[in-house]
Amino acid sequence: MFPPAAFDVDAAMKTLVLALDLVGTFVFALSGAAAGVERRLDLFGVLVLSFAASSSGGIFRDLLIGATPPAAISDWRYLAVSLSAGVFTFFWYPAINRLRSAVLIFDGAGLAVFCVSGAQKAIFFGLDPVMAALLGMLTGIGGGMVRDVLLSDVPVVLRSDIYALAALAGAAVVVIGDALRFPSVATTCTGAALCFGLRLAAIRHGWH
Amino acid sequence: MFPPAAFDVDAAMKTLVLALDLVGTFVFALSGAAAGVERRLDLFGVLVLSFAASSSGGIFRDLLIGATPPAAISDWRYLAVSLSAGVFTFFWYPAINRLRSAVLIFDGAGLAVFCVSGAQKAIFFGLDPVMAALLGMLTGIGGGMVRDVLLSDVPVVLRSDIYALAALAGAAVVVIGDALRFPSVATTCTGAALCFGLRLAAIRHGWH
Amino acid sequence: MFPPAAFDVDAAMKTLVLALDLVGTFVFALSGAAAGVERRLDLFGVLVLSFAASSSGGIFRDLLIGATPPAAISDWRYLAVSLSAGVFTFFWYPAINRLRSAVLIFDGAGLAVFCVSGAQKAIFFGLDPVMAALLGMLTGIGGGMVRDVLLSDVPVVLRSDIYALAALAGAAVVVIGDALRFPSVATTCTGAALCFGLRLAAIRHGWH
Repeated sequence: MFPPAAFDVDAAMKTLVLALDLVGTFVFALSGAAAGVERRLDLFGVLVLSFAASSSGGIFRDLLIGATPPAAISDWRYLAVSLSAGVFTFFWYPAINRLRSAVLIFDGAGLAVFCVSGAQKAIFFGLDPVMAALLGMLTGIGGGMVRDVLLSDVPVVLRSDIYALAALAGAAVVVIGDALRFPSVATTCTGAALCFGLRLAAIRHGWH
Repeated sequence: MFPPAAFDVDAAMKTLVLALDLVGTFVFALSGAAAGVERRLDLFGVLVLSFAASSSGGIFRDLLIGATPPAAISDWRYLAVSLSAGVFTFFWYPAINRLRSAVLIFDGAGLAVFCVSGAQKAIFFGLDPVMAALLGMLTGIGGGMVRDVLLSDVPVVLRSDIYALAALAGAAVVVIGDALRFPSVATTCTGAALCFGLRLAAIRHGWH
Repeated sequence: MFPPAAFDVDAAMKTLVLALDLVGTFVFALSGAAAGVERRLDLFGVLVLSFAASSSGGIFRDLLIGATPPAAISDWRYLAVSLSAGVFTFFWYPAINRLRSAVLIFDGAGLAVFCVSGAQKAIFFGLDPVMAALLGMLTGIGGGMVRDVLLSDVPVVLRSDIYALAALAGAAVVVIGDALRFPSVATTCTGAALCFGLRLAAIRHGWH
């Protein structure tokens, strides 16, 4: 009578995206908090950097497409996850520091998720394909840029091409897939995998 | 027949909040202008810093909750007050400098007003209680952060917990009071008094 | 039967403004890209600075007046022009460097166009005259401020009064003309010419 399978796929997709989004938020928050601890900020400063690093990209995207209030502001789970990462980093910084390569890998996963979810949301709000791909990239890299500006540094991403290009490639897969009317589950997963693979290859081979 | 008292209280409240808001704008503008004069900017730069320090917090809040154009842009009084403070500081910097402890106290008053008015506005626009409290805090501390970023410094507030915590405490009183349906005049005054008291105690005892 | 002349003037005006807007975007993008090359950023960083320098002013204006998504995001031509300028600068930096005084002159033209088009758009969205003039100025100077903040510098415009004042003067002509109901073609051209003339005079005489 009605297509339960399609519904299930949709629901599964939403759950998957939310879960990945929260993982991305967590690892980006770790990177912001670690940068704060290294600058000897105290707890509040570390928490601000956690939230800024994990949520600024999505907040920029939502402001630009007119989706106010942004998800990072209206859904408490993003805040809870980024503050948890900040508190954890503040009190157990040596543990984070030992896990640095693990954090890098999670960070790649966060970048992969954010670039595809950002592109999907921009398409949904009716943006041009090229702009949707760029907003996907911005969602992935914006948080790190704000983190660095708050610490009075030149954003790392401006010096590291491959990081942003991986995000752009992932977002482009989503946008092209959407233009060709491929199923969005498939293009989202492919885009995220491409971004993640590029990022891992860059880490392994020391590409900038 | 109809409750004139309630209306009067409301009107008195609005007038009070507007008056306090403008006082807050003035003292935050003083802090921005003083930072500009110390960096030897000329008049225009000092005025930009006055406006940025006094209005960025409210502008961020209004962009995030979707209240465009922001009050600082649509109501000329905010601009007039912040430019007056900038001109005054530019030409009579020694006087401001002598009054520094008075400025610190006014700045505490500004923080107190902005955190409660920010939280009230966020509640009015339907945000979650936790997010409303955080937006109240952001309204209080956002201007100082933009001032420091424009001067290429790490924002002072990231190094001084108590400043932001005072703002968060004041905003939290408003949000909790709203959840318990206490009258908003009472919670607004209590929240502002708590924030102001914490800030004065921190100044007196040299807490960071 | 109907006023074809008026329509033609309107259409010619729109084409003129769009053409000038794209010229302004191009030269501001050149300034952002040149700043990036001087800091030895690689291609991606240079392109980000191109886009940020050419489009941030208009994006700020559009966010503040609630015109989302901003024109720089929804119209691909702005992006194409700013990326072209970035690629050109990255590969032929010596040529740009030799043309520096030409770039300064084009930059003055860009400032002139952006301040009047920004003021027109703000008036159209119903802002106060004073605020419309300031938003016109912000449209002109915002891109350079973001460029400098991303490079962790104090924005040049904070140290150079005449640059911002030229933009404010141009925007003020548009706003005053609108209040007096002068034809917008005339006020737009007069405002742009005033801003451009002030900027050229400042360059020639070394005013700051």
